[in-house]
Amino acid sequence: MTKILGIAGSLRAASSSKAVLRAVLANLPSGVEGTTAEIWPLPHYNSDHDGGPEVAEFIAQIASADGLVFVTPEYNYSIPGVLKNAIDWASRPAYASVFAGKPCMIISVSAGALGGVRAQAHLKYILNGMLAHVHPGQEIVIPQAPQKLDQGVFNDAAILAFIDAQVSDFCAALPKA
Amino acid sequence: MTKILGIAGSLRAASSSKAVLRAVLANLPSGVEGTTAEIWPLPHYNSDHDGGPEVAEFIAQIASADGLVFVTPEYNYSIPGVLKNAIDWASRPAYASVFAGKPCMIISVSAGALGGVRAQAHLKYILNGMLAHVHPGQEIVIPQAPQKLDQGVFNDAAILAFIDAQVSDFCAALPKA
Amino acid sequence: MTKILGIAGSLRAASSSKAVLRAVLANLPSGVEGTTAEIWPLPHYNSDHDGGPEVAEFIAQIASADGLVFVTPEYNYSIPGVLKNAIDWASRPAYASVFAGKPCMIISVSAGALGGVRAQAHLKYILNGMLAHVHPGQEIVIPQAPQKLDQGVFNDAAILAFIDAQVSDFCAALPKA
Amino acid sequence: MTKILGIAGSLRAASSSKAVLRAVLANLPSGVEGTTAEIWPLPHYNSDHDGGPEVAEFIAQIASADGLVFVTPEYNYSIPGVLKNAIDWASRPAYASVFAGKPCMIISVSAGALGGVRAQAHLKYILNGMLAHVHPGQEIVIPQAPQKLDQGVFNDAAILAFIDAQVSDFCAALPKA
Repeated sequence: MTKILGIAGSLRAASSSKAVLRAVLANLPSGVEGTTAEIWPLPHYNSDHDGGPEVAEFIAQIASADGLVFVTPEYNYSIPGVLKNAIDWASRPAYASVFAGKPCMIISVSAGALGGVRAQAHLKYILNGMLAHVHPGQEIVIPQAPQKLDQGVFNDAAILAFIDAQVSDFCAALPKA
Repeated sequence: MTKILGIAGSLRAASSSKAVLRAVLANLPSGVEGTTAEIWPLPHYNSDHDGGPEVAEFIAQIASADGLVFVTPEYNYSIPGVLKNAIDWASRPAYASVFAGKPCMIISVSAGALGGVRAQAHLKYILNGMLAHVHPGQEIVIPQAPQKLDQGVFNDAAILAFIDAQVSDFCAALPKA
Repeated sequence: MTKILGIAGSLRAASSSKAVLRAVLANLPSGVEGTTAEIWPLPHYNSDHDGGPEVAEFIAQIASADGLVFVTPEYNYSIPGVLKNAIDWASRPAYASVFAGKPCMIISVSAGALGGVRAQAHLKYILNGMLAHVHPGQEIVIPQAPQKLDQGVFNDAAILAFIDAQVSDFCAALPKA
Repeated sequence: MTKILGIAGSLRAASSSKAVLRAVLANLPSGVEGTTAEIWPLPHYNSDHDGGPEVAEFIAQIASADGLVFVTPEYNYSIPGVLKNAIDWASRPAYASVFAGKPCMIISVSAGALGGVRAQAHLKYILNGMLAHVHPGQEIVIPQAPQKLDQGVFNDAAILAFIDAQVSDFCAALPKA
C-alpha cells in the first residue's frame, strides 16, 4: 500500500482544513491509504530540547509516508504558527531532514474570497527550502470554506472533483516503495 | 517616555536573536525605554479558546507600546513557528488588531551567510497584512550571528552602529503619545 | 494641488488595469489631480545606457508626484515584466532613488478568481525594497475584472466605493508640498 | 545529446550573470550540450500582438530544451523586468505553456552580500506557477559576483565546484528524450 500522511494546519474543532483533509483521505485512489498527523501535542520548537516522544512520533510518521498532503488555513497572510512549529521540529538537519525529497501536495482554505493563496505561497517556499518535492499542479485554493461544510462534512462536489484529479496525479507519480 | 517592545523569535537560551535584542534595547535613544515580550508561555493558537492570561498580557504589551522591534532567526526559509504563533494570538480581529497602525522594525539573524533575509521577507508581509507600519529602512540582516557573540553579548561594533542609526530614525518617527 | 501619478502594468489596448486606473484618476478627491505615466516607450533596462529621454521623463514624473497609484495585472504569479522594467529604470541609486520615501498605493486585477493577489505581494516587496512607503490598507484585489468593464469603462460600483475610500485615506495622508 | 538552454537575466555587456552562465555551459557533463537564449531582442509583452519571429524563436528554444538554467541578478528585490518579460512571452496558455513540466535550475548573483536570494525566491515562485519543475537543490547564490570575474571569466573554483555538483544532479535527473 502507498501511504499518505495528511497534516491539517488548524487546531479548531470545527476547522474547515480538517474537514477538507478528511474528505481527501476518504477518497484516495485504490491502493493508497491515508492517516492523519496530530500537531497539537507538539511543544514549541526549541533546539535546546528534543521535543519528547510526540516529536519523535511526528518525524517517524513523515519518514514512513510516501507522500504528504497539507491542508492549511491562512492566518495573517501566512500559514498558522502552529503548523510552522510542527514543520520546524521535523526539519533538522537542514537539507537532510525527513522532508528532503518527500513528495508534498498543498491545499489552502479560507473563510474569505482568496482561498488562502498567500499562505500557500509561504508553505510552498518553506517546503522547497527543505528540498521537499512540491507537486507541480495548479494551486488548489478553497474560498468561503466554512460555507461549504454540512454538519462538519466538506461536500462541494466541483471542488472535490478538482482535488481528486490532482490527488490521483500526485499518487500516481509517487515513487513505489 | 516612548515605549519600545522587543520580541525575539527564538526560545533557545543562547539565542543570537535574544542577544541582539538585548543589545538593541540597551542602546535606545534618550527618552525611549525598552521592555521584552516573552512568547514561550503562549499556548498554541486555537480560536476555540482565548488563550488565557498570558495571551491577554502579550496583547496588552503590544497595545501599550509605541513601537515594536522584532529580532528573528530564520527557520526553513521563514520565521519560527513559535513567533508566528505569538503573532496569530494578537492578530484578531483582522485589520483591526493591536498591530493595525503599529510601527514595527525588523532585524533578522542567521548562523549562515544570508542573515535570515528570507524570514524577514515573510515577517514583513505578515506585518503589512495586519496593517502594521513596517519601518521603510534598508533591511537589517546579521549573518554568522553566533560568531559575533562574546559570552552571550552581541558586540559587533559595525553592525551595532548600523542598527542604532536605524533605531534612532525609527524612534524619531514614532507618533508622540 | 496634490499630484498623483498613475501607472498601469499592462500594455493591452483593452486592458482592465488601464480601465481601473482611468476610473480611479477620474474620482480623485478635491484638490488632487492625476496624470498617467506611459511605460511602453521605455527600452529594456540595461545599465550600460541611460535609457534616453523617455526614461528621464518617467523618472521626472515620479519625482514630481506626491503619490503613486499602481494598477497591475498578474502574469505568472508576479507583476508583468514590462512594469518591473519601468520600475528598474527609476530605481537607481539603490535606496536613494525617486522611489525612496514615495507614498504608493497598489491595486491588482485579474481575469480569474484571485484578483492578482500574488502579483500584489511581489510589487509590495519590490516597492518596500526601494524604501517606498506602501499605504498600509487592506489589499485591493479585483477578480474577474474584464467582466466588470462596459465599453472600456470600469463601473463596478461596490468596488469603486471600496477603492475610493482607500484613495481618500491615501491622499489625506500625503505630505503637503 | 541532452540539451540545456541557458538564460541570463541581465543585458549588460559585462554582466556577472552572463559570465556565470558561460562558465556553467562550458562545464556541462558529458553527453549534455548547452546553448544560450537571447532575451534582448524580445519586444515588451503585449497580448494584442504575437511578438514576431524573435518570440517564436525563444519559445521554440525552450520547447526543444530538455532543461533550463537561469542565471539572474537581483534588481530591487526581484528579478529584472527584462527577464520577466521574456518569461511572459513564453507563458501562454496558462498552465500549458512550454514551461509546463520543464526542468529548471536557478542561480542568482549579486554585487552585494546576499547573492540575489530575494530574486531567486520570486523566480522560483513564477516558475512553479507555470508548472515548471524547479530542481529541488540547495539554493545557489553568488554574492560579490563582480569581484569573482577575471577579464570577464567567472573563476571562483569553490563556487564552480558547488554549482557543477548540482548541475550534474540536475542533468542526471532529466527525462531522456
